[in-house]
Amino acid sequence: MSEIPADHLDLLERPIVGHLGTVRPDGAVQVNPMWFLFDGRRLRFTHNTRRAKYRNLQLDPAMTISINDPEQPYRYIELRGHLEEAIPDPTGAFYQELARRYGNEKPEPPADAADRVILVMAVDRVGGTQ
Amino acid sequence: MSEIPADHLDLLERPIVGHLGTVRPDGAVQVNPMWFLFDGRRLRFTHNTRRAKYRNLQLDPAMTISINDPEQPYRYIELRGHLEEAIPDPTGAFYQELARRYGNEKPEPPADAADRVILVMAVDRVGGTQ
Repeated sequence: MSEIPADHLDLLERPIVGHLGTVRPDGAVQVNPMWFLFDGRRLRFTHNTRRAKYRNLQLDPAMTISINDPEQPYRYIELRGHLEEAIPDPTGAFYQELARRYGNEKPEPPADAADRVILVMAVDRVGGTQ
Repeated sequence: MSEIPADHLDLLERPIVGHLGTVRPDGAVQVNPMWFLFDGRRLRFTHNTRRAKYRNLQLDPAMTISINDPEQPYRYIELRGHLEEAIPDPTGAFYQELARRYGNEKPEPPADAADRVILVMAVDRVGGTQ
């Protein structure tokens, strides 16, 4: 099942911090809080090619996000998928778009703009909702 | 490094919902919100032997938790480790202990008490703090 249940769509539309899991080269799981943007089909994250998560995804494109309703901790959605592409974001424009979505009204371009990328995640399975 | 930084210890002591990552048999990552209890060395979770995460951990004991400060979304800690043991909890007593920690004053024993286990996670690395 890769359809998002209509009654959980708000979790993807609201600016909630998600927790993104990837697999490290040593087989350990990496999980970090991440901003995201959902366009109805794919999720987009802002990231940096020098970080561990980017290296993880080059070796293993599996990525899964867990998003929990801050007001109702039992409500959550888990989306399992894979990295479809990594799009350069050399001005940091997408970083700034996400920063605005998450409440920063006038974000500066990030200091690491030259290494910024947009991670585009395709959703393969809706793994858990409650 | 497997020492918890003192200035992030509150994230393990407060009843924050963590996000626990495990690896599925197909190689996909599973991430779900989870209650936890930290005793200064190990984390304990309440779980059920019939669920996917339990099966995942039988095949691959890698487990990682990401805990995010709800009041300061940039503050988080990531602990990477492995399942040390799964202790039967046939009366659901540990489930009830966790439920109380997370704000339920008079929790009932869980309906699935017969299958309840306490997952004990040993911490191998503190993977990220901010």
